[in-house]
Amino acid sequence: MTVSPTASSASALGVGAQVLNWADQLAGHSDHPAGLTVGYLTRAHQTTAAEIAGWMIEAGMQVDIDAVGNVVGRYVSPDPAARSLLTGSHFDTVKNGGKYDGRLGILLPIAIVSRLHEHQIKLPFHLDVIAFAEEEGVRYRTSFLASNALLGSFDMNWLKAADEDGVTMRDAMRAAGLPATEASIRDLQRDATQTLGYLEIHIEQGPVLLERGLPLGIVTSIAGGVRMMAVVDGVAGHAGTTPMAMRRDALAAAAEMALAVESRCAQAPSLVGTVGILSVPQGASNVIPGRCRFSLDIRAADDATRDEAVDDVIRVCNAIARRRGVTLALEPTMRVPCAPCAPPLMAQLAASLERTGVTPFQLPSGAGHDAMMMARLTPAAMLFVRCGNGGISHNPLETVAAEDVDLAGLVFLDFLRNFRP
Amino acid sequence: MTVSPTASSASALGVGAQVLNWADQLAGHSDHPAGLTVGYLTRAHQTTAAEIAGWMIEAGMQVDIDAVGNVVGRYVSPDPAARSLLTGSHFDTVKNGGKYDGRLGILLPIAIVSRLHEHQIKLPFHLDVIAFAEEEGVRYRTSFLASNALLGSFDMNWLKAADEDGVTMRDAMRAAGLPATEASIRDLQRDATQTLGYLEIHIEQGPVLLERGLPLGIVTSIAGGVRMMAVVDGVAGHAGTTPMAMRRDALAAAAEMALAVESRCAQAPSLVGTVGILSVPQGASNVIPGRCRFSLDIRAADDATRDEAVDDVIRVCNAIARRRGVTLALEPTMRVPCAPCAPPLMAQLAASLERTGVTPFQLPSGAGHDAMMMARLTPAAMLFVRCGNGGISHNPLETVAAEDVDLAGLVFLDFLRNFRP
Repeated sequence: MTVSPTASSASALGVGAQVLNWADQLAGHSDHPAGLTVGYLTRAHQTTAAEIAGWMIEAGMQVDIDAVGNVVGRYVSPDPAARSLLTGSHFDTVKNGGKYDGRLGILLPIAIVSRLHEHQIKLPFHLDVIAFAEEEGVRYRTSFLASNALLGSFDMNWLKAADEDGVTMRDAMRAAGLPATEASIRDLQRDATQTLGYLEIHIEQGPVLLERGLPLGIVTSIAGGVRMMAVVDGVAGHAGTTPMAMRRDALAAAAEMALAVESRCAQAPSLVGTVGILSVPQGASNVIPGRCRFSLDIRAADDATRDEAVDDVIRVCNAIARRRGVTLALEPTMRVPCAPCAPPLMAQLAASLERTGVTPFQLPSGAGHDAMMMARLTPAAMLFVRCGNGGISHNPLETVAAEDVDLAGLVFLDFLRNFRP
Repeated sequence: MTVSPTASSASALGVGAQVLNWADQLAGHSDHPAGLTVGYLTRAHQTTAAEIAGWMIEAGMQVDIDAVGNVVGRYVSPDPAARSLLTGSHFDTVKNGGKYDGRLGILLPIAIVSRLHEHQIKLPFHLDVIAFAEEEGVRYRTSFLASNALLGSFDMNWLKAADEDGVTMRDAMRAAGLPATEASIRDLQRDATQTLGYLEIHIEQGPVLLERGLPLGIVTSIAGGVRMMAVVDGVAGHAGTTPMAMRRDALAAAAEMALAVESRCAQAPSLVGTVGILSVPQGASNVIPGRCRFSLDIRAADDATRDEAVDDVIRVCNAIARRRGVTLALEPTMRVPCAPCAPPLMAQLAASLERTGVTPFQLPSGAGHDAMMMARLTPAAMLFVRCGNGGISHNPLETVAAEDVDLAGLVFLDFLRNFRP
């Protein structure tokens, strides 16, 4: 195989079409018949993992499904003293999500490894392609469970967490044929001294590259996030007989809080705030809501901007609760600091982009990624691929162009062949 | 039995304690182990019906469970030409409701009939105690299904309605041993010429009698209600990568609409507006809500006040949707005009109150009741019994005092013995 740094045709490798094809195949496995939903360790999740493992084996990799369900494929180096360069992303999805979120970062490296294997090109390091079993955290409201396992920071309390149907994570692991023991999970911790770095390829999930007319981007830092679950308790009552002034309506209070989140988080450019879950347990049209639960997700490109917003939101929500005579309980469920990417890896990525004929462009990531966890273990970087359809993601309308994936494949291959730790 | 019009002791009959006891027993049958929830034709509903039927039989009544599940007990008059006076209320509940809502108006008449029967006192008319199978409409989002059947206005499309688990009403009827045929339901229509009137005893479900220090009240009119289900469609997206200004957040739009309902409905004394149900289907903390569903319930003591508010709310909600770039679909699910009570029955009730030593006090009903439907068939009236605990209802904290029920029993007995059509 001749892979010239100045490859005239981006589709020379032909990986784009294959990756999109694979993504379509994986999208056939879903927890719900409508749309693509793959929760941690569901049947669809296991089928997806098995399919990925099969493709890894065909690509010439050694494959293992580890104790938390990660599918880990190694393209083994002939060097007996070789250490590992890591790449990968997640294959779980949000509810009714897109086909490329996470999966692109698994499938594209597999496709590139299959080309290397076909042409019997070996690398001076092991290349570990990690298909992370969980990143979205929808089923158990955990997050980065899979990458935490590799860091040795898997919280063993998660094993007792129950999903909406009351199935604990431990039982879900057993049902999936995993050992479900603390020792087996602890054993997943990676040795930093044997690890050279982590590069994650991911769709941008936003409109920036699209608006700039660029196919690829180098991530500078990954926005940290704060997540909370809120419970508002008011007083349930009859919708026909309780005068408006005498109500302690939990939903009306929550509605005011949601709007406060929205307006406060519109006050800084990189700041975003989202109420994604909201429910009135046992609600009925003729009953004043006595309780309301909702989620809060606040992020920014830097920790200070985000934390100021979080503080303001908490203060305003408490004031709303006091004024309305309801109680508010806020439980933090996640706090992830912003993770800057490793400059040496960013520089090597930029060189690969230039050799491939793509202008290196840098941008922050508003979304969280496994890379932000892996950065605690080893130098980490990310390559973003342009999102179509206005940059929409976490949505069935999510798209990516085969040509952009082809280019990303060329860049990734160039990166691998020139990589120096 | 001597029942003097000036009975010195309200507890002479002793029905209060018995009725509260019965209500406690019925509260043991619930669809969910926590709290009292009895949906139409669930197992708990059928057990409740069977228990009521048993007490009716013990009280000396002929009992029938009709084609929609109503338990109808008749205290038969010896007069071969007797027509029927109707009384009763519903035994289904809202989710996590109170023990007395509806049930008081079934149990108190049964207790009074048992006293009449014990003392072999006959009436010149049949007294039909109707335990209505459905009034709250939680399971199928119908309302007044049971009383509509007696009016001949049961909507046969309801049979095809499915509950949250996809069980159709027709299947639920069959599972409950009902014929589930249109003919059997049509046969329930009552003959107005054979009906003398309808008197419903009910807890007030509000704070008015409590604040006035009065045990009982005569209802002047029953507030009509308008109910709608709203669906807001925005665009789902990634919570970390979509700038606030580019969002079409369905939940944020719905929150603004809910607050608009609240503020508009605070602008007239008898007007109330409630968003009791609100959900984000497939919501996740890291996904901008693409869809939000909510219910609207708006009522007032007169139709004009209510309809003006409904029009304003619809206009404002549409404006919110337009401004936010989301769509709003509003589906009317109920429109019930206000029902004034029949003055001749109100006058007879007032006389009974006076003879029992209770100041007759008149008040409107903010809640809907079967009486508002029955008023289309026959002259209807309602006797309200004071609610404890601040007037709270549709809530496990709902209470009523045995002494007040005793007084209501005396008034009802006096009413029966003096009733003139």
